[in-house]
Amino acid sequence: MKDRIAASFARQSMMQTFGATLDYVAEGSVILFAPILPGCRQQQGFAHAALTFGLGDSAAGYAALTTIPENQDVVTAEIKINLIAPAIGDRLIAKGRVIKPGRRLIVVTSEVFALKDNTDTLVAILQGTMVPVQA
Amino acid sequence: MKDRIAASFARQSMMQTFGATLDYVAEGSVILFAPILPGCRQQQGFAHAALTFGLGDSAAGYAALTTIPENQDVVTAEIKINLIAPAIGDRLIAKGRVIKPGRRLIVVTSEVFALKDNTDTLVAILQGTMVPVQA
Amino acid sequence: MKDRIAASFARQSMMQTFGATLDYVAEGSVILFAPILPGCRQQQGFAHAALTFGLGDSAAGYAALTTIPENQDVVTAEIKINLIAPAIGDRLIAKGRVIKPGRRLIVVTSEVFALKDNTDTLVAILQGTMVPVQA
Amino acid sequence: MKDRIAASFARQSMMQTFGATLDYVAEGSVILFAPILPGCRQQQGFAHAALTFGLGDSAAGYAALTTIPENQDVVTAEIKINLIAPAIGDRLIAKGRVIKPGRRLIVVTSEVFALKDNTDTLVAILQGTMVPVQA
Repeated sequence: MKDRIAASFARQSMMQTFGATLDYVAEGSVILFAPILPGCRQQQGFAHAALTFGLGDSAAGYAALTTIPENQDVVTAEIKINLIAPAIGDRLIAKGRVIKPGRRLIVVTSEVFALKDNTDTLVAILQGTMVPVQA
Repeated sequence: MKDRIAASFARQSMMQTFGATLDYVAEGSVILFAPILPGCRQQQGFAHAALTFGLGDSAAGYAALTTIPENQDVVTAEIKINLIAPAIGDRLIAKGRVIKPGRRLIVVTSEVFALKDNTDTLVAILQGTMVPVQA
Repeated sequence: MKDRIAASFARQSMMQTFGATLDYVAEGSVILFAPILPGCRQQQGFAHAALTFGLGDSAAGYAALTTIPENQDVVTAEIKINLIAPAIGDRLIAKGRVIKPGRRLIVVTSEVFALKDNTDTLVAILQGTMVPVQA
Repeated sequence: MKDRIAASFARQSMMQTFGATLDYVAEGSVILFAPILPGCRQQQGFAHAALTFGLGDSAAGYAALTTIPENQDVVTAEIKINLIAPAIGDRLIAKGRVIKPGRRLIVVTSEVFALKDNTDTLVAILQGTMVPVQA
């Protein structure tokens, strides 16, 4: 299962631009890491919401991908993010999880944490819908 | 007003990584452009949702910034995106707009279009809440 | 088209409890009215969010229903509401609209206004996804 | 703390119309019950989304209320619901929880379950933002 997710992940050039890596894959659950690169910041020097969102959305999408047949891909239909705290630190970790699998709609959530020194802070939560499509 | 928005925009390194430019600024309304760069794509070669989201969120945030005092900045509290069509084309345009200004909460929306040849397609709509903070 | 919407509307006992009426039906667009009944209020005496949400969601859902075949029904997959102002007044009006029709997903929005004396105030906006199902 | 929540709850006529009861109150956590009354249904006879939303939103709002000073009240700024399964059964239970307390914004979630015979089914999840206001 991890090979399938890794192959799709490797084709997303945005994940490379973010310097993101696939950390963990299990049925209905995926964890991604990314450094907060100098080129991915907002006006105060923290991680940009596009990075936080991109990791949270991708972790959720790949969590959904673990639950559907091999000949299908998944796209985000919609997702909502609450940005809870400034994303200050060295890197982000996004934990995506399937709440409800389905043939037509897959309901997902993600949590995104910022890691600074040896502590992690919850910086965002996401809730959304993934849709299986023919690969 | 455009100078203020442009100064903040220039400090967002993520916008430079995206190659984004500030196209239009008016009271409660901001338009951004970005090419769909080779480094900002998903696994099928279309614009990555992080790019679409990042532009839509930023256009909405800067629209909110036009409505608050000069000594304040704005942060996204939450925002929701519906991805309506694949973001296929040469570049994206994001149109952010304030629905309801406020001292504590500013309600915003954005539309994101993909431009291909001479036609534009609505690829995403966003609805969210911006919060004024001390700059 | 209005007969179809009216027949479904009449089967929703919640709409009767709310005292809601179907005001306008066109392709991709539906308007509902409801008084702010004594039994539909929150702790300050304004319209309860469940009423505001219920009207906005139903107006959007019926707008979606106008765009799909007669043998199908529609259910809300997800919807988000921003409550913009207190819903003070005599009645609410909800205007639902289809942003993007589709066979699998229909993207919708609604605006809800409170009517007091001869003025109306925007009290909520909604953005969501409807899904066609077999009737 | 439960007295405070119960007093506010009793002033919401909509909760009485729904037949809702306050089941459990703790710091950052509230549980509500409601029967699926004949007058609170959608066209197929299941619980109407307005009921599911209303309970989920109220449970989240009261969870937020447990975290702020006694002289303040709380209003929903925005909330999003994913409807996961048809709400079939005898009654609903809504479990609201504070994710992140705050003086200006309180981030919350809820889960809503339908109870039928001796089993409960997750029918909806909500994620939103509550705002403290002067009571």
